[in-house]
Amino acid sequence: MSNLPKITCLDDVRQIIGDLPGPDLQAAAAAQAREPQLTKPAGSLGRLEQLSAWAATWQNRYPPRMTTPNAHVFAGNHGVVAQGVSAFPADVTVQMVQNFENGGAAINQMCDAIGVGLCVESLDLDNPTQDFSQGPAMSDAECAEAMAFGMEVIDSASDVVCLGEMGIGNTTSASAICLALYGGNSLTWAGPGTGINKAQIGRKAEIIGQAVRVNKPELRDGLDVLRCLGGRELAAIAGAVLGARLKKVPVMLDGFVSTAAAAPLAAMNKRALDHCKVGHVSEEPGHKILLEKLGKVALLDQKMRLGEATGAVLAVSLLKAAIACHNGMATFGEAGVSD
Amino acid sequence: MSNLPKITCLDDVRQIIGDLPGPDLQAAAAAQAREPQLTKPAGSLGRLEQLSAWAATWQNRYPPRMTTPNAHVFAGNHGVVAQGVSAFPADVTVQMVQNFENGGAAINQMCDAIGVGLCVESLDLDNPTQDFSQGPAMSDAECAEAMAFGMEVIDSASDVVCLGEMGIGNTTSASAICLALYGGNSLTWAGPGTGINKAQIGRKAEIIGQAVRVNKPELRDGLDVLRCLGGRELAAIAGAVLGARLKKVPVMLDGFVSTAAAAPLAAMNKRALDHCKVGHVSEEPGHKILLEKLGKVALLDQKMRLGEATGAVLAVSLLKAAIACHNGMATFGEAGVSD
Repeated sequence: MSNLPKITCLDDVRQIIGDLPGPDLQAAAAAQAREPQLTKPAGSLGRLEQLSAWAATWQNRYPPRMTTPNAHVFAGNHGVVAQGVSAFPADVTVQMVQNFENGGAAINQMCDAIGVGLCVESLDLDNPTQDFSQGPAMSDAECAEAMAFGMEVIDSASDVVCLGEMGIGNTTSASAICLALYGGNSLTWAGPGTGINKAQIGRKAEIIGQAVRVNKPELRDGLDVLRCLGGRELAAIAGAVLGARLKKVPVMLDGFVSTAAAAPLAAMNKRALDHCKVGHVSEEPGHKILLEKLGKVALLDQKMRLGEATGAVLAVSLLKAAIACHNGMATFGEAGVSD
Repeated sequence: MSNLPKITCLDDVRQIIGDLPGPDLQAAAAAQAREPQLTKPAGSLGRLEQLSAWAATWQNRYPPRMTTPNAHVFAGNHGVVAQGVSAFPADVTVQMVQNFENGGAAINQMCDAIGVGLCVESLDLDNPTQDFSQGPAMSDAECAEAMAFGMEVIDSASDVVCLGEMGIGNTTSASAICLALYGGNSLTWAGPGTGINKAQIGRKAEIIGQAVRVNKPELRDGLDVLRCLGGRELAAIAGAVLGARLKKVPVMLDGFVSTAAAAPLAAMNKRALDHCKVGHVSEEPGHKILLEKLGKVALLDQKMRLGEATGAVLAVSLLKAAIACHNGMATFGEAGVSD
């Protein structure tokens, strides 16, 4: 990892975002050339055909590989929880991290079932970010440190990284980021999160609106939005997205919070998320709108709204199937099948 | 398998369809009782929560299990191919069966990637069914024999069976079955299959309309429709659906042809497909309409239209994840997480 650029402040990150490596067009062309030779009607594997070409393009490798998928779950705590935005107390963040470490959470079973490695990354859980309804969530240095952490933990040996999160209060952060980046009514971005009622969602929308108003003077670009309205786990996800790009690792984003964490990068460089797919569209209502803003279509829709990278890991099964078909199928010539 | 009812004619099958075993309500209740205790917001695993309850209900077992999923690909040939309804010649059916046996097809890679056992079942490929645009595709005995075969090959040790097919010309058969069962315009049920053009689809629709008109006097119930307009692989799939019900094995149907093969059972007993899910909605346009008629929602939509059980096998990854979560997650009490 020694050849990663040094990050001590957000201006270092701005430089990286302005100069991201592009796609491997040779790998993409090789994938497109093989597909019509395989023993199936042209195009009949649908999206799976695109997935194998996409993986090759951003792995900078042909043929693509899917033997070492990894998931990273970043956890953080949020000062805004003091405003009563969540159905669960802030203690649950650390309790759930313990549950991940003991193998008892949904993401543990999902990783075992699909065959994905799991890394849990806690970010200073005893030290919540500032309440962003009153001012910036993080200082420049705090946000840069969390982003650098996210960049570093990505292993270049990963064939894909699933990026997920745990953090009581973080759908409020995700909604505030979306409101700041895309505008609209704060109620369209606010949702039930872990399960608050309609009146509580109204209160959550007010907090989101207030957060954007209070921080307005500082919101000059996407990274300002991430620093002022994000949290450490969201900043780490954004850093992981950049680290994966530099290390030639495709990214599978999870639900609303993960996608919102990555959105500030797209606001600064419209090609910044080309190496990212979104695994699952969340029942959290803001996610569908956010995906439209980003021009992304989620791979799965199973009415889930859990986070923890569960939606991203579930979608790895599609990647595995796609790449197995692309690499392993016989051609018409090899199989003696009439074309 | 010795305790399966004997089938020598379709009236034997009619008796089975009239007296199918129902759901295991105790297993269903046990699944529903455990779900809210698991360490996640209530309902946050969405459809996956329903899948584990469904599997338990039709496995007649609690907890449910997903260690031994199997796929059956039934292959048959169709006299109607003489009418020029397919982009590929009839020889391709036997060539693709060879490809399955050599491990070169999409379904082989998919089964390896997801961890599903594969059985390929050829039905008298040298002896195509009669051209159903001229009269019934099969005699009562031929159809009954294919159904009995499908019933027998289901192994009661399977935790789910994926039912798929290979047969040049069989989307024409599927469309004709749908037109006979549900009416409408023959063009709404005709599609490109392996890849015919718009003019050829028009011709295919005419053949479908003619097939239903010619056979009309004999179409008294769903099994008549299957016999007159089906093919051996479709009859075997319908038999496998019944066999799975009797043997307490849930069913994952594949695309348009597999679902159309099962539809005649639903026309005779509206509970006949309660133990069946549909893995993937095909790009073949009739499938979406057929799913609405059956009140089914496919689990996946990856724009595939290949058959071979590929859509069903892909959906097994969801079943594996669902059941791993249901069985393996810690409860709030076990994990010490605040509820």
